[in-house]
Amino acid sequence: MVEPVLHFGRDEYARRLARTRAAMEAAGIEVLVVTDASNMAWLTGYDGWSFYTPQAVVVAGGGEPVWWGRGMDVAGALRTCWMAEENLLGFADRYVHSRERHAMEDLADRIAERGWGRARIGVEMDNWWLSAASFAELQRGLPEARFRDATGLVNWQRAVKSEAELAHMRTAARIVERMHARILEVAEPGLRKCDLAAEIWGAALRYDEAIGAGGDYPAIVPMMPSGADAAAPHLTWDDRPLKAGEGTFFELAGVSHRYHCPLARTLFLGKPTRTFLDAEATVLEGMEAGLAAAVPGNRVEDIATAFLAVLERRMGIRKESRTGYSIGLSYPPDWGERTMSIRPGERTPLEPGMTFHFMTGLWMADWGFEITESIVIREGPAECLANVPRKLFVKD
Amino acid sequence: MVEPVLHFGRDEYARRLARTRAAMEAAGIEVLVVTDASNMAWLTGYDGWSFYTPQAVVVAGGGEPVWWGRGMDVAGALRTCWMAEENLLGFADRYVHSRERHAMEDLADRIAERGWGRARIGVEMDNWWLSAASFAELQRGLPEARFRDATGLVNWQRAVKSEAELAHMRTAARIVERMHARILEVAEPGLRKCDLAAEIWGAALRYDEAIGAGGDYPAIVPMMPSGADAAAPHLTWDDRPLKAGEGTFFELAGVSHRYHCPLARTLFLGKPTRTFLDAEATVLEGMEAGLAAAVPGNRVEDIATAFLAVLERRMGIRKESRTGYSIGLSYPPDWGERTMSIRPGERTPLEPGMTFHFMTGLWMADWGFEITESIVIREGPAECLANVPRKLFVKD
Repeated sequence: MVEPVLHFGRDEYARRLARTRAAMEAAGIEVLVVTDASNMAWLTGYDGWSFYTPQAVVVAGGGEPVWWGRGMDVAGALRTCWMAEENLLGFADRYVHSRERHAMEDLADRIAERGWGRARIGVEMDNWWLSAASFAELQRGLPEARFRDATGLVNWQRAVKSEAELAHMRTAARIVERMHARILEVAEPGLRKCDLAAEIWGAALRYDEAIGAGGDYPAIVPMMPSGADAAAPHLTWDDRPLKAGEGTFFELAGVSHRYHCPLARTLFLGKPTRTFLDAEATVLEGMEAGLAAAVPGNRVEDIATAFLAVLERRMGIRKESRTGYSIGLSYPPDWGERTMSIRPGERTPLEPGMTFHFMTGLWMADWGFEITESIVIREGPAECLANVPRKLFVKD
Repeated sequence: MVEPVLHFGRDEYARRLARTRAAMEAAGIEVLVVTDASNMAWLTGYDGWSFYTPQAVVVAGGGEPVWWGRGMDVAGALRTCWMAEENLLGFADRYVHSRERHAMEDLADRIAERGWGRARIGVEMDNWWLSAASFAELQRGLPEARFRDATGLVNWQRAVKSEAELAHMRTAARIVERMHARILEVAEPGLRKCDLAAEIWGAALRYDEAIGAGGDYPAIVPMMPSGADAAAPHLTWDDRPLKAGEGTFFELAGVSHRYHCPLARTLFLGKPTRTFLDAEATVLEGMEAGLAAAVPGNRVEDIATAFLAVLERRMGIRKESRTGYSIGLSYPPDWGERTMSIRPGERTPLEPGMTFHFMTGLWMADWGFEITESIVIREGPAECLANVPRKLFVKD
């Protein structure tokens, strides 16, 4: 008899399920096939690096959700999910990367067996973990089902965090503070970026008595381009040394039980150029304006509008990309929650308990600059999760 | 003017493209939309953690391939792809995680603009990076195109590695040797697994003068379950300490320029049980049998058959899961190449230059055991990429 290790109480999972069922009912969905790894974990606790083969959580009107995945991963489900063993279903390994058969045939059979073959079935159409072929196979295997697009349905139920979730995010915040402190300690001209990456991972993972936790892997690895390469937001690291006279931004997340606290800072080695000092002053002023707008009663877009106005007024920059997104529980490839983006047009009202990465990064022709914060919407001013000095770091 | 950093010569990219075009022609495909991040990198050099938004490489009958992705990632493509800037196309940020529009509308427009709107278009139907919604949007945007499933088309061209690719894999092998050596050095009862994970990441990334390289991030993070949890193959780590009297397997990969050398070993703290000693003897004998079969003239399945026979004869175990898969260049979520699986029925002939992770792991009801090798098929006996003592590690 294996007892699962759960990071939330069963009552919290029950509330999540109830919320999801209410959303299903509102959307006219009888059976929901959840393939997004983060949504699967949020609903059931399931944890494991198994999302490279098909897997799903199936939620119907009553009873426990059903976890379904590769046969060998049932052992992982048994150790991480709150449901009874009879609701953990494995498919045979002959379906894995086969040219003759597809695992979704098995899922279709399981759904039909439970009498849901003619149901209105919701699927997350726009998610990495439901390939075009997976959906086609599901349709083929369930010819009488009526499929509905349920992209984001569970994600939206996750938008307002419980206190237990915020506790994990605050632990993640302590971790990301430690990561940035470590960078500031060791970065210097000549230090190879792969060695700096090793230091960052060390600070991200090691157990810390003061925090009372060690860290988990992030949904995105550290992004840390230097100099002109910082024009590119999603480069990682290489073997080359840090150079004097260059800025490097570090976009990182601390992670605790899959809950993320992303936070970026920029470090300049040497005397910062006018451009970097201007960027610092502008982003800090813009961020203050955005934070002031991050209050219940306002809409998500109000944060963006406030920030973008400062950016344009002070530096004439019209940032086309969004200035943030909702965050929480995540698996690779993205630590965003994929619901709200902080940008003009996102008219969702801000509510206490919502969490965002306020992503005020600038990526220009031959430089880049990031000072960001992860925030919790509160009655009153927003809470910045981490406490990392909000400034351009300079080592001269 | 930005000069890209390429990890292969332009002649090698030209050969890859020619091979891909020949396969397209054989499959009756005029335009290939490559969304698999590993295939994109293999064809163009593109590197960046940007696969969480839609992106693609489009290959037609002539000219350079076209890289297409999020506008802000053009700067990364400019720094990592061999093609001219005019062939790097970005879509507007308003498409990112939008509820009103989909980035694939933009790709469809770009394809139509180039006169390929009525072509036979190959798409990788069964890949994480082509969601069901992405494909539906592409069909909607190109109503006159005739779509063909091209899953695995590029992957199969990657099966036989060039000497330049093998050089990167040998560097990765040096790195994974260092990772396992570090585990053996520091693991002891009481050491928290998150701290051991930090040590593993350090050994994976730090620059080593003897190797002449630092490491890159793996497509799968270290999997390292202990005791009864090792029944589950895909658990990662937590804060709990290693315990005396328990076995832990470490399934890891060294990585150089995205080329992987996966390798697993098992460590027992204390006096190993009969079960572990039997598993050791069995897996080592089975592996020898498998390696002896890993020669040109044989088929992929012959490796599995040889290994499985020993497993059944010595321990009565009928392993249902595959015993390995092709490897090479990879991005998360999988370091497998997703072509050949080492299992009965995989009748592809072995060819010199093919590379596999010979994955002889056992996951039983309440224990798990992994001793694996990554191999290169050669004229003559297979080459084991890494040189890590092939045995059960014991610290008593």
